[in-house]
Amino acid sequence: MIKSPLKLAIIGGGSSYTPELVEGVLKRLERLPVKEIHFVDIESGQEKLNIIKALAQRMVDKVGANITLTASFDRRAAIKDADFVMTQFRVGGLQARASDERIPLKYNVIGQETTGPGGFAKALRTIPVILDICKDIEELAPNAWMLNFTNPAGLVTEAVLKYTKVKTIGLCNVPVSMKMMIAEMMDCSPNDLSLEFAGLNHLVWAHRAWLEGKDITAEVLEKVGDGANFSMTNIFEEPWDPTFLKALGAIPCPYHRYFYQTDAMLAEEKETALSGGTRAEQVMETEQELFMLYKDVNLDRKPEQLEKRGGAYYSDASLDLVDAIYNDLKTINVVNVRNNGTIATLPDDAVIECSAVVGSWGARPLSVGQLSPAVRGLIHQVKAYEQLTVEAAVHGDYEKGLMALVNNPLVPDIKRAKAILDDILRVNRDYLPQFNH
Amino acid sequence: MIKSPLKLAIIGGGSSYTPELVEGVLKRLERLPVKEIHFVDIESGQEKLNIIKALAQRMVDKVGANITLTASFDRRAAIKDADFVMTQFRVGGLQARASDERIPLKYNVIGQETTGPGGFAKALRTIPVILDICKDIEELAPNAWMLNFTNPAGLVTEAVLKYTKVKTIGLCNVPVSMKMMIAEMMDCSPNDLSLEFAGLNHLVWAHRAWLEGKDITAEVLEKVGDGANFSMTNIFEEPWDPTFLKALGAIPCPYHRYFYQTDAMLAEEKETALSGGTRAEQVMETEQELFMLYKDVNLDRKPEQLEKRGGAYYSDASLDLVDAIYNDLKTINVVNVRNNGTIATLPDDAVIECSAVVGSWGARPLSVGQLSPAVRGLIHQVKAYEQLTVEAAVHGDYEKGLMALVNNPLVPDIKRAKAILDDILRVNRDYLPQFNH
Amino acid sequence: MIKSPLKLAIIGGGSSYTPELVEGVLKRLERLPVKEIHFVDIESGQEKLNIIKALAQRMVDKVGANITLTASFDRRAAIKDADFVMTQFRVGGLQARASDERIPLKYNVIGQETTGPGGFAKALRTIPVILDICKDIEELAPNAWMLNFTNPAGLVTEAVLKYTKVKTIGLCNVPVSMKMMIAEMMDCSPNDLSLEFAGLNHLVWAHRAWLEGKDITAEVLEKVGDGANFSMTNIFEEPWDPTFLKALGAIPCPYHRYFYQTDAMLAEEKETALSGGTRAEQVMETEQELFMLYKDVNLDRKPEQLEKRGGAYYSDASLDLVDAIYNDLKTINVVNVRNNGTIATLPDDAVIECSAVVGSWGARPLSVGQLSPAVRGLIHQVKAYEQLTVEAAVHGDYEKGLMALVNNPLVPDIKRAKAILDDILRVNRDYLPQFNH
Amino acid sequence: MIKSPLKLAIIGGGSSYTPELVEGVLKRLERLPVKEIHFVDIESGQEKLNIIKALAQRMVDKVGANITLTASFDRRAAIKDADFVMTQFRVGGLQARASDERIPLKYNVIGQETTGPGGFAKALRTIPVILDICKDIEELAPNAWMLNFTNPAGLVTEAVLKYTKVKTIGLCNVPVSMKMMIAEMMDCSPNDLSLEFAGLNHLVWAHRAWLEGKDITAEVLEKVGDGANFSMTNIFEEPWDPTFLKALGAIPCPYHRYFYQTDAMLAEEKETALSGGTRAEQVMETEQELFMLYKDVNLDRKPEQLEKRGGAYYSDASLDLVDAIYNDLKTINVVNVRNNGTIATLPDDAVIECSAVVGSWGARPLSVGQLSPAVRGLIHQVKAYEQLTVEAAVHGDYEKGLMALVNNPLVPDIKRAKAILDDILRVNRDYLPQFNH
Repeated sequence: MIKSPLKLAIIGGGSSYTPELVEGVLKRLERLPVKEIHFVDIESGQEKLNIIKALAQRMVDKVGANITLTASFDRRAAIKDADFVMTQFRVGGLQARASDERIPLKYNVIGQETTGPGGFAKALRTIPVILDICKDIEELAPNAWMLNFTNPAGLVTEAVLKYTKVKTIGLCNVPVSMKMMIAEMMDCSPNDLSLEFAGLNHLVWAHRAWLEGKDITAEVLEKVGDGANFSMTNIFEEPWDPTFLKALGAIPCPYHRYFYQTDAMLAEEKETALSGGTRAEQVMETEQELFMLYKDVNLDRKPEQLEKRGGAYYSDASLDLVDAIYNDLKTINVVNVRNNGTIATLPDDAVIECSAVVGSWGARPLSVGQLSPAVRGLIHQVKAYEQLTVEAAVHGDYEKGLMALVNNPLVPDIKRAKAILDDILRVNRDYLPQFNH
Repeated sequence: MIKSPLKLAIIGGGSSYTPELVEGVLKRLERLPVKEIHFVDIESGQEKLNIIKALAQRMVDKVGANITLTASFDRRAAIKDADFVMTQFRVGGLQARASDERIPLKYNVIGQETTGPGGFAKALRTIPVILDICKDIEELAPNAWMLNFTNPAGLVTEAVLKYTKVKTIGLCNVPVSMKMMIAEMMDCSPNDLSLEFAGLNHLVWAHRAWLEGKDITAEVLEKVGDGANFSMTNIFEEPWDPTFLKALGAIPCPYHRYFYQTDAMLAEEKETALSGGTRAEQVMETEQELFMLYKDVNLDRKPEQLEKRGGAYYSDASLDLVDAIYNDLKTINVVNVRNNGTIATLPDDAVIECSAVVGSWGARPLSVGQLSPAVRGLIHQVKAYEQLTVEAAVHGDYEKGLMALVNNPLVPDIKRAKAILDDILRVNRDYLPQFNH
Repeated sequence: MIKSPLKLAIIGGGSSYTPELVEGVLKRLERLPVKEIHFVDIESGQEKLNIIKALAQRMVDKVGANITLTASFDRRAAIKDADFVMTQFRVGGLQARASDERIPLKYNVIGQETTGPGGFAKALRTIPVILDICKDIEELAPNAWMLNFTNPAGLVTEAVLKYTKVKTIGLCNVPVSMKMMIAEMMDCSPNDLSLEFAGLNHLVWAHRAWLEGKDITAEVLEKVGDGANFSMTNIFEEPWDPTFLKALGAIPCPYHRYFYQTDAMLAEEKETALSGGTRAEQVMETEQELFMLYKDVNLDRKPEQLEKRGGAYYSDASLDLVDAIYNDLKTINVVNVRNNGTIATLPDDAVIECSAVVGSWGARPLSVGQLSPAVRGLIHQVKAYEQLTVEAAVHGDYEKGLMALVNNPLVPDIKRAKAILDDILRVNRDYLPQFNH
Repeated sequence: MIKSPLKLAIIGGGSSYTPELVEGVLKRLERLPVKEIHFVDIESGQEKLNIIKALAQRMVDKVGANITLTASFDRRAAIKDADFVMTQFRVGGLQARASDERIPLKYNVIGQETTGPGGFAKALRTIPVILDICKDIEELAPNAWMLNFTNPAGLVTEAVLKYTKVKTIGLCNVPVSMKMMIAEMMDCSPNDLSLEFAGLNHLVWAHRAWLEGKDITAEVLEKVGDGANFSMTNIFEEPWDPTFLKALGAIPCPYHRYFYQTDAMLAEEKETALSGGTRAEQVMETEQELFMLYKDVNLDRKPEQLEKRGGAYYSDASLDLVDAIYNDLKTINVVNVRNNGTIATLPDDAVIECSAVVGSWGARPLSVGQLSPAVRGLIHQVKAYEQLTVEAAVHGDYEKGLMALVNNPLVPDIKRAKAILDDILRVNRDYLPQFNH
């Protein structure tokens, strides 16, 4: 059966990550006959969008691919008849992220892009926009798959699955990065590893690790406890306590440090904020440097400096998914999908992050069942926070927002929750029309 | 049908609470034909036991009741053929409780008798002893009901239900106190109130309150937010935020302050520890005063000063249960029992605290179903802590103990969890044989 | 607190059962200050309605009660401001019931008023009418309780709870009859018995029976197996196999005979249909006799002959519920309510029949948890049939109707299911507007 | 990584199916380095075992494979250090199967090898033997995978998973046969089909069918309703009603005919039993013919006549599983495994048949979640029957056996259940030591 060529729409096309995505497409031309990529962004991002478009064109030209590139502010045109809509936008830009990081720190609370109050603020800004995008998809490309990379990816995907009819899968580069690091510490090929992932986005555990049929979970935990590299560019690598890891019995993701090692992570954040600036502030610099590079008319490939930006394997996670769906590969990918009984006792309509078989039928999660008490409490606590956040974001509901923060394990107290919430609503006023009714 | 008269065994009979229990028996003589009460305690409590026995005898004599009182160290004799075994003992005495309160404070963590690391330490000391008592009951009084008042009552009851065959119900004076305070604020008789309690011990919510068929939950929450009295002698009455209460949509118990208002509660604890001494240290003084009073050969009733001690309605909660079982009353009492599907998504074998119909069949909980996201996260987090604590206490398992503390929402961090655990194990070494294998 | 007097609306007031209801009201005048009873029926029932009204008036006058009686075809007037709406109507009358019983027998399938295809047909006729009644209640008496006695009571109550906002409780005289028969066989007062009922309407088991704290389940099962009376007027008393009862471990209701003893029940039905006529046909005669009696201007009480009609304890089951709600009694009644997790693994929105605490808050079921495999299969099978029947009845959906019958354990085969369905739709055409769209 | 070569133990090696298995091994030599196959059987099967061994040797020699073949009665030697133990034995032989088929027919009940009372009888005979085999595996080959083909495969696998520690997967050729037939009717390659299987063994549905990303479930159901071939050699092909299939919304397996089209299947069975003999009696003839062929010293391949025997794709289903595990393929196979939350509301420890990802980690099922009411009732009913059958078989418990049959949807009545049970126990006395204690 001859399959039709593909149109991709990239929402947030002016992102510094885009060259990686383009590179991913070009690497897979034999498997994925992409005929058109439409980069779309908002007007204030025009300059970046132009730079990206030009660089992408040079990359395409270099390999002689037959792909039409378009860059515009016309989201509806981009979405119209797209086969895949990839979302990677950032409402409020890095400026808003910086305030997400700074506000909680004022109250001695973790200030982080996707977890804690920072992720909450980002969700409030992002969810109304993505629901709007989904209306366009429902109308203009009802058969398209939306691959959502926009953070907080689990929360955003849950809002989409609850409030729209768009076929969507959320994804994240954390699980694939964990796999790569485990392969490195086991000195094996990632292909020989089997990892049973289940949890929530940025709160995912590899519950068991297998190397060619042998359960190596304990061995991996020992190596991690022993100091093997197990973090990501954007997360401070506070060492893990070996006894704790053994007691946990599951491999935590780098973001778990915020929950399990709060004191050290907070101390580091506060120091960094004082010295080098928060992560957002550092990224702003990196971004500027990247776009300087991107402008170079001689550059016709993804520059190595992009790796510093923190999105390792972003392109692979994303395009492997396109590949699996388009070519019906039935590979195991780690994705954000509707729970539907996969993790027992979480609500059916909750979005979880887990290993799933991806093919032309979408993503079918591997059954997980009952989680151990070692992880069951935290996942329910964070999911309650997420459910409440989705409601707060969709309905602009102050009380739900307060309950969301009170339920976030990184926020220790009602008083601080309220103060942070009020700061967030004030500072982000322009991005939160749903709260100004 | 003529029912046989009753034998009660009071484990921890030397407690200062015992006169209240005796008073409760004497008030109900028409309904409860008690023929014998056996107070049992350990040898180091001999003096107190003698004082209590003598006071109880004066109280019995005063009303001319035909009850044989016995006081001894012979637990097996006490249990033999008892109809009800009431447990109210304290392993390590108030001295141990003082260290439970002091240790966490060193690490800026809530130091409290039953919640947080303090309750954890108490569970480690108590569970091996109660399992030992249960062996005696299984052998010597297999049909007896054990009414467990020993804190942390939920945890202790869970251990008993998981590891023994003893028919047991855990109970607590918090729900009945909440009912009394709500009646006071609504200016109505407690009998006209219907409260739907469900949660865990010292983490119980009244999810709905009814006054003669009218749902008054919102009204009660307003009054509590407005400053109506809603605490207990032993818990600092930090005011509740009205917006939070409205968002919560359920009436929290006084102990919820430790979880929702951690900052203020911790500040108060630290200040009190510096000035008047921790709660345990204050209680030691009260105890001494009480026993001075009890010694008075002219005293033949429960002295009023006992109320200061904090156990309001203790006797009523306890003897109402005896009454309901013995006389098959089918009244609604709030008890600690096996979940068995009552609260959806908690494990079947978890112990919960909830409204139940109590009669000769024991306690049958009222179905609860799904909890709202506003409370679902916290209850799963605390139950995970409790499950892990039971395993740690029964098996003397360091790793389970560490995971228990890491899962306790009052302990923010692995490092502090470990430091606190190590302190607890060291200080309580004499009471933790299960960890010294 | 002084409570306002009560208005009752009786939908299907012309029923021969009504005198029992009136008697029940008059017996409880001290507890239930009824000021008005409005009997409503359809025009074709005018004569019966008049007879009932006149008899009721004589009964009221006899005791000198201050109750206004009204009889009319004006359903909206009856419902307006009612405190309790009691439904006991029969769409299509006994004529339709006779065809419900006859059609399945043609295909060698149990023909019965409420179980099997007969109950299915009755549900198709009844549900559209009751949803219509509920629209009136929502508008004219939004605070009223609807007590639904209309069969199939579980199915009808499920439709109401799924498709309306009316506060409703379904009820049935089977559980109370079982209690009375068990009391008789144990030679005890029914008040000393505690029975744990859980199941579906006409498929309810008493899972455990207690007599003053002693579990007598096995003893009751032995007596039933030994031939103790354990049926109801309208159900053929095929003896129970003692080994089966022991294996079942729970006390079945009389209607269980249709499921467990299908051969014998079918044989008896076929014989009766040939000789004396089906149950409906017998009842038509009884009815005629009853109304002859009712007409007697000297009759001023419920005649004893009504008992033959089969509705033993109908009045008590019904008015005890009114009493419990109005006076906030918190008694345990057996009712049909939303499952909401009470029986684990049945859907939350399924209606079940179970022991519940009834008071001004409505009915709160006692938690049941996991059912044993001995009964779990049948209850899921019948509940699936019921869910599909509700959908078929509400939407007039032929396929759902077919699947409903295929799922009914009394219908052995698709072919017979389809033949029966087609007969039912044809014969009942006038009463099934939802299928004629 | 170089993998060690494989030893296979074939329990019931004298089966006429064995040549297919050997052929499967020889086809996969490049992927599966089998070094040894040990055929084991009981003494009464000596002649057949010898014939099979000789034929297998000729087949091996023909392709020049380096495989040691052993045939013996020494089960322990066969199991010792095996990598895979494949079970395909038949306690009591075809003679016992014939009585399984005949007994129910006496009572007008479906008489079938694996469903209904026939499967029940087979389970009673088989489960004690397989538990015995498992004891040997636990001792002599604790790392071996047992692939269980012994019918009733779901029930037998459930007994093994509940009562032993053996790593086991149950399998069946029904799902793969369904896939092949659907591919045929869709005129596509089976590889382009994706089927979502979930249910129980011989009660499995393909809930959705996809062809290259397009949901073709409705189309397949139409074709099946239209008369497309959709049965298996051993099941009478009673046509399916198209309206029923549409209402069902899922693709039934051939064995579903016994449950949904009981009348026609029973009629056919009774006729066949009278004329040609039951299926077992027919198979006896086929077997004899096959072994005549097998004896031929010139035969060095699987003869085509084996296909008539009914085990199409047996070898592929089985060796694809060995391949997937040994080579860590992560392919989707349909297997019998512990439910563990895969199908919501079935017990965690129930064995289900479903699509799973098979690799060196064993089989990880694809999450299913809530089943529709159209199928939910039947699966719960049959699983209750299965749970009770396992208990009856393991403990020799008459009451559980009776409840099992009463719960089997093919047995309409207690009386018939009891008569059938008594016949089964009497006729199979020699094979049911557990009932003779």
